[in-house]
Amino acid sequence: MSFSPLIRQLIDALRILPGVGQKTAQRMALQLLERDRSGGLRLAQALSKAMEGVGYCRQCRTLTEDDLCPQCADPRRDDSLLCVVQSPVDVFAVEQTGFRGRYFVLKGHLSPLDGLGPEAIGIPELLARVADGAFTEVILATNPTVEGEATAHYIAQMLIPKGLTISRIAHGVPLGGELDLVDGGTLAHALAGRKTIRL
Amino acid sequence: MSFSPLIRQLIDALRILPGVGQKTAQRMALQLLERDRSGGLRLAQALSKAMEGVGYCRQCRTLTEDDLCPQCADPRRDDSLLCVVQSPVDVFAVEQTGFRGRYFVLKGHLSPLDGLGPEAIGIPELLARVADGAFTEVILATNPTVEGEATAHYIAQMLIPKGLTISRIAHGVPLGGELDLVDGGTLAHALAGRKTIRL
Repeated sequence: MSFSPLIRQLIDALRILPGVGQKTAQRMALQLLERDRSGGLRLAQALSKAMEGVGYCRQCRTLTEDDLCPQCADPRRDDSLLCVVQSPVDVFAVEQTGFRGRYFVLKGHLSPLDGLGPEAIGIPELLARVADGAFTEVILATNPTVEGEATAHYIAQMLIPKGLTISRIAHGVPLGGELDLVDGGTLAHALAGRKTIRL
Repeated sequence: MSFSPLIRQLIDALRILPGVGQKTAQRMALQLLERDRSGGLRLAQALSKAMEGVGYCRQCRTLTEDDLCPQCADPRRDDSLLCVVQSPVDVFAVEQTGFRGRYFVLKGHLSPLDGLGPEAIGIPELLARVADGAFTEVILATNPTVEGEATAHYIAQMLIPKGLTISRIAHGVPLGGELDLVDGGTLAHALAGRKTIRL
């Protein structure tokens, strides 16, 4: 019992942040109180504005406070490419690569055991988006996990009959690091997906 | 440019937290938006209440929103012992040890080069507190750094003439770990401060 109630409440509230335990929360609370109260107030405002104001893009369903997210609203993007991802944070990851097509964000992956079927993760909306758009290729960029693969496979089954090119991001060894640290499954994919070198 | 303005502002604001960089701030912002909006709002409220409401204890000068902090307000504590620390977080550390005397919190350590003299860190208030109280011993628990030692030495010089016992927390090898990993200065202190074993 050595912190006053307001400080204790702040420490408890900070612990909802991912990766923040008791000790880190304490350090954060005391540092804000002692060194940066205006920064703390700014954070409080940014939090409440974002929690109350941010919704989902009407078209791609990523997080945004506008009707359309910056990616959907940008007229200079390639309208023939659609990249399907599992969550809004993946949009950011794919953007970093320089991809400049359109996006569609699922709500996670198919998980029948948890009751998450095609409707729950937004497959009907994806089919509607594909039907509306002028896409020639749909890139399936769900996570390289069992569930992500299953989700990609399911979507491919639905879209291939529509005459579109459906692609999956490549599996293989990541850049950097050493071959003996790569797991067997990844290495098997990398071997099976080998490419002929042409000089 | 792939996050909307409100999300970008939230990510920027989260970066004022100690130890939080761009990537962690992104993960925190998206996790709150996707999974725990009510937690995010609770955090916003706790932050603004604490930043606006928390001040300093009238007696020991630790952080609290009340006139007296829980330690000063507790009538069951030992009024003969005063523990002097450098910052509010140290009160918590010393409390963990089971110490149940009184505290006085300095504002950091003496640092003449930064213009921080005895007045700036609150030595006059410490002397007044000692004069008011019924202390028989003052424990100097400033940090075991050059500046912390200098601050402890300065305070000892001021208080010893008043006929009080002035003590400094012991330096030595920490519990656990191995001797060859302890730095030379610490080991020298541990040797110099060795204690006779009595069975």
